[in-house]
Amino acid sequence: MSIDTSQSAVVSDEVLDLVFREARTVNTFSDEDVSDEQVREVWELVRWGPTAFNSLPMRMLLVRSTEARERLASHMSGSNAAKTLRAPLSIVLAADLDFHEHLPRLAPHLAALRDQLADAPDSRTATSRDNTFLQAGYLVVGLRAAGLHVGPMTGFDAPGVDADLFAGSPWRSIMVLNVGAAPADHEGFSTPATRDRQARLDFEDVARVV
Amino acid sequence: MSIDTSQSAVVSDEVLDLVFREARTVNTFSDEDVSDEQVREVWELVRWGPTAFNSLPMRMLLVRSTEARERLASHMSGSNAAKTLRAPLSIVLAADLDFHEHLPRLAPHLAALRDQLADAPDSRTATSRDNTFLQAGYLVVGLRAAGLHVGPMTGFDAPGVDADLFAGSPWRSIMVLNVGAAPADHEGFSTPATRDRQARLDFEDVARVV
Repeated sequence: MSIDTSQSAVVSDEVLDLVFREARTVNTFSDEDVSDEQVREVWELVRWGPTAFNSLPMRMLLVRSTEARERLASHMSGSNAAKTLRAPLSIVLAADLDFHEHLPRLAPHLAALRDQLADAPDSRTATSRDNTFLQAGYLVVGLRAAGLHVGPMTGFDAPGVDADLFAGSPWRSIMVLNVGAAPADHEGFSTPATRDRQARLDFEDVARVV
Repeated sequence: MSIDTSQSAVVSDEVLDLVFREARTVNTFSDEDVSDEQVREVWELVRWGPTAFNSLPMRMLLVRSTEARERLASHMSGSNAAKTLRAPLSIVLAADLDFHEHLPRLAPHLAALRDQLADAPDSRTATSRDNTFLQAGYLVVGLRAAGLHVGPMTGFDAPGVDADLFAGSPWRSIMVLNVGAAPADHEGFSTPATRDRQARLDFEDVARVV
């Protein structure tokens, strides 16, 4: 007997197209603003995604002011600087190395874990980074489900961003997301605007059965 | 002017509940099978999620046979062993350290990248691990959107799994997902069955604006 996936009937092709199939990395946006409230609503959705012992280490720096935007852009590689200056909103995703301080609230059933992690900085760094990337996956999906377009970038000087924007903080940058609405003439293309959609791997390339 | 999110009207509350708000880590499943075909369909959806230079480093080992299941369970920590033995399907998510071999096909516009990465094993390891966690986020969403329930676990002896199941392979385990249908009496609880849903962080805990 195979699983009754009747529940999945609620997920229409239109939704799957919006979030995955037709979604594209967008690097040119319209002038429309993205409000803090919109990002808050997305966070209040994607925070339910599972993380290791409910650690939730991902943090978000919403870069809005011209001064902060220019500081961020100064650390971006190549064309990522111009993309960042043009975006309605850039979000620096960071791994909080002190995520363990929240564990008494987030994982009260693991009473000893906060103190164990306090003495294990290497383990904390790895857990924070791994689970921040995991949460970044949920966040990309959540932003798209909210009708926003995203341009994720890892091409930047992360230690430079950390020294500049996170001095004295346990936040460590791992990704920058440009967020906005696509321009009216957007046809789903990444930059350069004429690049065709890139290939993906097939199931046979990525899966084995034992 | 704020963004027209009319597109998001296609994403119903029912979908957001299924994928995020009401979804729970499930560790006890019904006896129903999960077919390779179901996993293939989910892969063909989530493979469209963005990764750094379209690297797509995530690999999946579908663990079905009793012998393979017992070998995997022998490396799982504590109660994760029993959870793995009971699940209809366990998927070992792995980071492919040789993902760069696919780049001529996946990122033909970055002609030099494969050879650059061939000489940079540390960079390759980090990129593979980071982006596999990112893709794991897409996969959890995709499995839930297909009506499946998941129980993600990072509590296992990863070097032990790699030596046992990935000997001679560039795949490195980063997470194990138990996958199936929830039992009929499932009320959304994680194990132990009576544990209430754990708290999540608020927007003010995780976000700053500059």
